[in-house]
Amino acid sequence: MKNILLTIEYDGTGFFGWQRQSGVRTVQGELEKVLSKLCACPISINGTGRTDAGVHALGQRASFQGNFGIPTDRLAIAANNLLSGGKRRPGEVGDIRIIKAEEVLPDFHARYDAKGKKYIYRIRSGVSPNIFDRNYIYQIMGALNVGSMREAAKHLVGTHDFKCFQASGGEEKQTTVRTIFRIDIREHEENEIHIEVVGDGFLYNMVRIIAGTLVEVGKGQKQISDMEKIIASKNRSTAGHTAPPQGLYLAEVYYREEDIHV
Amino acid sequence: MKNILLTIEYDGTGFFGWQRQSGVRTVQGELEKVLSKLCACPISINGTGRTDAGVHALGQRASFQGNFGIPTDRLAIAANNLLSGGKRRPGEVGDIRIIKAEEVLPDFHARYDAKGKKYIYRIRSGVSPNIFDRNYIYQIMGALNVGSMREAAKHLVGTHDFKCFQASGGEEKQTTVRTIFRIDIREHEENEIHIEVVGDGFLYNMVRIIAGTLVEVGKGQKQISDMEKIIASKNRSTAGHTAPPQGLYLAEVYYREEDIHV
Repeated sequence: MKNILLTIEYDGTGFFGWQRQSGVRTVQGELEKVLSKLCACPISINGTGRTDAGVHALGQRASFQGNFGIPTDRLAIAANNLLSGGKRRPGEVGDIRIIKAEEVLPDFHARYDAKGKKYIYRIRSGVSPNIFDRNYIYQIMGALNVGSMREAAKHLVGTHDFKCFQASGGEEKQTTVRTIFRIDIREHEENEIHIEVVGDGFLYNMVRIIAGTLVEVGKGQKQISDMEKIIASKNRSTAGHTAPPQGLYLAEVYYREEDIHV
Repeated sequence: MKNILLTIEYDGTGFFGWQRQSGVRTVQGELEKVLSKLCACPISINGTGRTDAGVHALGQRASFQGNFGIPTDRLAIAANNLLSGGKRRPGEVGDIRIIKAEEVLPDFHARYDAKGKKYIYRIRSGVSPNIFDRNYIYQIMGALNVGSMREAAKHLVGTHDFKCFQASGGEEKQTTVRTIFRIDIREHEENEIHIEVVGDGFLYNMVRIIAGTLVEVGKGQKQISDMEKIIASKNRSTAGHTAPPQGLYLAEVYYREEDIHV
């Protein structure tokens, strides 16, 4: 029995999210279809993060077990060929790509063994929206005060009950305490900012609600000093809006503590 | 009776091309639906270039006539609101946008009065293909000799019978003589090159076949000296492959000679 860990990137635009659902196209569903074909046995994969419809991944991870003949080092190339429809020109790609497939210890699990994850939320502000980027970045009107957003973000770092940033639909009975190791807000060209959030785990829609709340701070609709009150309230209605899915990227999954704290 | 000229950009990914066809989503079809609603009368538009499925536009033009009450300066905003589904956040956009709507003289026609057009063909080479760009650029394996491509392109400038660059499906009975005023091959960041072609008119798939032929020159599969023979042959099979639609952008339409020669 082999145990394989995959590193995967995908453009979430054409999917109803990660999780397998009958009748709709999902990332897990497409991957399982292709891997089952290659391995000539039914394959069921465990993904690390169940991204929503429209959310992208640069470094999603998933593991699966099975008895199959195809060598691990050929798995990614063969799967990518099937994933891109198998009839494209060389160099052309589909909307999912397996970056890496590696054999791991028998008891390794892509989700349970994850020590942390990094999400990136992309925003462009103050310029006319670009139709070609509409599925890949949150385009907002008006300017943002990035300095205020950075100050506000400092209040989120650490271990807190983040119930205020959990969308309804989150699993109510479980703890809503999480640790955010760091939040960096980086400025890029063309009025683009990236909010990078590294944490040990995230509640349902947590990064999108954090992004929406920080945007409201950046616009002056919320104050830096509101952040402590929002967290203390444990009430979703005190936080900002849920930023749309297209700005969100699951960037990296960490399996070793030392990779988180660099 | 008003006569209106529109300047339009669109992401061609989600369309079966420009031209209205029943049962499928086309750019002309979407625009006519929205304009007919706003003008409260059936609107039929004349586009300058009938782009194929997957081909984009930065500056398509179209004109239409009608007796309607909505002021010209409100037309673009109202149409864009309907085109983006009318329920997005401020700043979010759909896959078509009217950049400008202006009233023109009664006998002006967007297609018949065009003196020239500029197309841009985007290529990335020599780097691992990016899944997020798959609908927006032609990604090819291996390196390209841009110097050779520029030399080869010089043979295309001028007035020639370009039958060799016309796909089957082109209108056979009409003349295949066209004038290319200039071809510029510009190098951009991240191994990207743009082939800019300005001409008085283009045959069916002409720019995509020129791009495919120049790529073959850049790869050394065709020689610079082949270009004259290809043109002289008037035979499609001597030219290179048809580069895929996603790299092509209708960039600009010229209505005045002096705008072409700058």
